[in-house]
Amino acid sequence: MRITILTLFPEMYDSFINTSIIKRAINKNRIEIECINIRDFTKDKHNHVDDTPYGGGAGMLMQIQPVLDCLNSCRNENSYVILTAPIGKIFKQKIAREISKHEHIIIICGHYEGIDARINKYVDEIISIGDYVLTGGELASMVISDAIIRITDGVILEQSHEDESFENGLLEYPQYTKPYDYNGDVVPDVLLSGHHENIRKFRLSESLKITKENRPDLLEKREFTKEELDILSNL
Amino acid sequence: MRITILTLFPEMYDSFINTSIIKRAINKNRIEIECINIRDFTKDKHNHVDDTPYGGGAGMLMQIQPVLDCLNSCRNENSYVILTAPIGKIFKQKIAREISKHEHIIIICGHYEGIDARINKYVDEIISIGDYVLTGGELASMVISDAIIRITDGVILEQSHEDESFENGLLEYPQYTKPYDYNGDVVPDVLLSGHHENIRKFRLSESLKITKENRPDLLEKREFTKEELDILSNL
Repeated sequence: MRITILTLFPEMYDSFINTSIIKRAINKNRIEIECINIRDFTKDKHNHVDDTPYGGGAGMLMQIQPVLDCLNSCRNENSYVILTAPIGKIFKQKIAREISKHEHIIIICGHYEGIDARINKYVDEIISIGDYVLTGGELASMVISDAIIRITDGVILEQSHEDESFENGLLEYPQYTKPYDYNGDVVPDVLLSGHHENIRKFRLSESLKITKENRPDLLEKREFTKEELDILSNL
Repeated sequence: MRITILTLFPEMYDSFINTSIIKRAINKNRIEIECINIRDFTKDKHNHVDDTPYGGGAGMLMQIQPVLDCLNSCRNENSYVILTAPIGKIFKQKIAREISKHEHIIIICGHYEGIDARINKYVDEIISIGDYVLTGGELASMVISDAIIRITDGVILEQSHEDESFENGLLEYPQYTKPYDYNGDVVPDVLLSGHHENIRKFRLSESLKITKENRPDLLEKREFTKEELDILSNL
């Protein structure tokens, strides 16, 4: 998988590209990440890439010309083009799985007040990582990249994914490690029992409980197994 | 405002701290950001901070001892402690506004499979930036920091915030900048009219339209003005 990030701030990615899992994935040739500076494509003689919005308002808007020329310089028939913006579809684990199937992913990062809206028709998908405003699309593009890289084959052991939050529609059960007793706060005994079936049931029950408490919205559209329904009726 | 980030990977923040708006906010003394390495607090003779989960399962879990000792080293009565984890409350602009009122914010970043669940009772709030899984809490902590820093007084002009997505419960209207005509695709004429009231109405109408199309969920619990209801009934 190749990820191409179009940004005015390529240097923002230095630390991200050098983090453990990402770096390992790059070294194992599982992924390639490249950043292209949108500013390199401006035709403005002062190298400007932004201007004031038509109709007035605060802040500066990125112009379509440098962004589109930058996009055209790296797009091919296999590219899937994502624009990060608050107006987009909300990013979820399921969308990460869909995106990760593409061979070449291009992520365009808006900055300042965003990009001239005429860019929208040139992208395959507009994605928002959540209902909050960031100074630019750079962190959003890292979040999207991180989520898709870690589920790419060969990056993390497959077993790690199965029980994770959102993969099965539930939040993950609480986990504990050594020491058994920390200032009087002990690990639930069932986890030390070695009884796999009881441990599985305990974890499923905890998953359902925490999801019901913290994120009842996740349960609304979920299809439950008979076992899950029994557990829920006892909560 | 002071933000203290507890992490196993403080070097991941180098690029973030040096980005334009964040750096400017630091230079203007509006904010302070510090990263503390959780590993510095381990009592393990091999410097380990993680161990296998009780009850089995893939991956490694961060132990409570180094995390809690790290937290205790920097927490005071004014600290507001956030743990980033997928089980948490979903981060939204409104939560960013709430958090930004605190004088000292501590963000704990889990990594690997997360932190021993016994940490949960020591934090004020558990926050998730969205329904997806990341390799660690580091990017989440940057997203939270970025969102709260940019709404801190004196960091960005106040006027920039008013019309932004989520601030008024709607997605932002499309914005356009020069050139007026880009390959035959022209800017809506009303924006060049100089007629402020018509521009305001056009933008409100576009905001409502895009929110209805892309994020109808945002409209469900919203209280509308009479003007908004009139526009909506015509869409």
